[in-house]
Amino acid sequence: MKWVDYDAASGKFSVSVRNIKEDRIETELFDYVVAANGHFSTPNVPWFPGFDNFPGRVLHAHDFRDANEFVGKNVLLIGSSYSAEDIGTQCFKYGAASITYSYRTKKMGFDWPEGFEEKPLLTGIKGKVAHFQDGTSREIDAVILCTGYQHHFPFLPDALRLRTRNRLYPPGLYKGIFHTGNPKLMYLGMQDQYYTFNMFDAQAWYARDVMLGRIKLPDAAAMETDIASWVAREEALEDPFQAIDFQTEYVRDLVAATDYPKLDVDHIAVLFKEWEHHKMEGILTYRNRSYPSVLTGTMAPAHHTPWMQALDDSLEAFLNVPKQKQAAD
Amino acid sequence: MKWVDYDAASGKFSVSVRNIKEDRIETELFDYVVAANGHFSTPNVPWFPGFDNFPGRVLHAHDFRDANEFVGKNVLLIGSSYSAEDIGTQCFKYGAASITYSYRTKKMGFDWPEGFEEKPLLTGIKGKVAHFQDGTSREIDAVILCTGYQHHFPFLPDALRLRTRNRLYPPGLYKGIFHTGNPKLMYLGMQDQYYTFNMFDAQAWYARDVMLGRIKLPDAAAMETDIASWVAREEALEDPFQAIDFQTEYVRDLVAATDYPKLDVDHIAVLFKEWEHHKMEGILTYRNRSYPSVLTGTMAPAHHTPWMQALDDSLEAFLNVPKQKQAAD
Repeated sequence: MKWVDYDAASGKFSVSVRNIKEDRIETELFDYVVAANGHFSTPNVPWFPGFDNFPGRVLHAHDFRDANEFVGKNVLLIGSSYSAEDIGTQCFKYGAASITYSYRTKKMGFDWPEGFEEKPLLTGIKGKVAHFQDGTSREIDAVILCTGYQHHFPFLPDALRLRTRNRLYPPGLYKGIFHTGNPKLMYLGMQDQYYTFNMFDAQAWYARDVMLGRIKLPDAAAMETDIASWVAREEALEDPFQAIDFQTEYVRDLVAATDYPKLDVDHIAVLFKEWEHHKMEGILTYRNRSYPSVLTGTMAPAHHTPWMQALDDSLEAFLNVPKQKQAAD
Repeated sequence: MKWVDYDAASGKFSVSVRNIKEDRIETELFDYVVAANGHFSTPNVPWFPGFDNFPGRVLHAHDFRDANEFVGKNVLLIGSSYSAEDIGTQCFKYGAASITYSYRTKKMGFDWPEGFEEKPLLTGIKGKVAHFQDGTSREIDAVILCTGYQHHFPFLPDALRLRTRNRLYPPGLYKGIFHTGNPKLMYLGMQDQYYTFNMFDAQAWYARDVMLGRIKLPDAAAMETDIASWVAREEALEDPFQAIDFQTEYVRDLVAATDYPKLDVDHIAVLFKEWEHHKMEGILTYRNRSYPSVLTGTMAPAHHTPWMQALDDSLEAFLNVPKQKQAAD
């Protein structure tokens, strides 16, 4: 995808793409454009003093491939959202010597076992020693930036380009889909997500019905009013449980407007909350859980290698070496 | 830089750039455009079977930062040009356990000391074991792709875009500068390089003189004939010494056409050949050498940490451990 332009006179989009095989640019006209390119692939990469002289690896979560690379290492993860929790716990389970999290605004606050700690924001690294805003420091071997992604649409002119941080209701999209600057341009899946593919699917049905003329969009003022009410509700949310309810209501609203097959969003919301509770109960064990499909009732298979602290402890005792030494050998 | 377009009617280029501070695209008109964005920053990244399950790091030379990351490791480098030689020898000097090079067409063929080997092309990796076209294999801990770069001009339409591999005389550029499709578009530094900044500088003076009307370009047929003769000469080159002479003649030709200050290209060529000989004499020691400026005669300072095999050997003997073990401790 190279570029999209809208011609007001003809009411058409010209869409230019690179034909990679023939190495040339081709342009075609379209009545509607749907941007469904995701928003978790252009890393947001902050820089901290000392990165340029740090002898270990500094990578973004996006470039993380295999936790084996960090066996025996003291790993610093910057960030306090899914990637940080996910990659940090996985590195620990694979044998990292220690996991240090650094947060900008708020701790994750899980009940971390020994080997984990949460620090305020990194101020810089001297040699291999990371320094934090509270004046503390510790030696580290690698830094993983779990600092999120940017909504990135390099193929769109400014007037059509969605500008938003990662949030449940990006302003500027009616029903979370239709660009208010030109509702013939639709965005799918640009929200922060509890619901994923079933939400995208519900959005796709709604977008389809608008393109087929089955749903008529209201005028610009009505769209703005509707967006404003959702955004206000999002901004009042206080915890993940309320956030789950918010996105449940959003999906319910979409599904109700089309002939989308019955989707038991209330049951899905219950499962999300159960998962959230399991995560709080045991940050290293919640991935051992499985949940049923709300469509078929079938339980997901159990994890092939459930994590058990007991197993890890006994292995350590058996080998009679501390965790860090084991990993380094 | 977003996009460049040429309007034949007005004879102007429209150049669109992103104003990053204000986050919007701006467009201005120009009579000439010079593409001087380099061609060593878009990595050429081949894939080999087993990369997806290899537990170590796989990176392109472009992402190499610090040889300390590879201390004690068996490093495989794919490629047989500057990056491979450079990164492989540096990793070895910093304490990598072994360096394995894999070439597609031709060995580098230097007189490698113990710890280095050259293998034909990688066929794939199983677990940590790399397999090569000659049926041999060896365990490795990391892969560095020294597989070069692509000429990349995502801001240019097909008719203006230079398409070439990395070579001394890219066809399609008169005097190695002026795009034959539209000579008001100039490219600087798109050649494979012995000469670097002094060649770019000589190109810039020539381009300047064309823009100022001091040099008049010949017609299209004459430009093609001139290009063809240089390309034919390039294709007949047999070794690096002839290649040095070729680029020397190219720079001499550019310099002669403008009021560029005297540049002793013959002396520069002598130094390049001396360097090439030093490289053949000692692949680990040639960087200890220094050379004089042809402008001032001043010798470059000696390397702050000259490499000496004797030093490395005595360290090894002193510690009484083989190199690999040292590094792993």
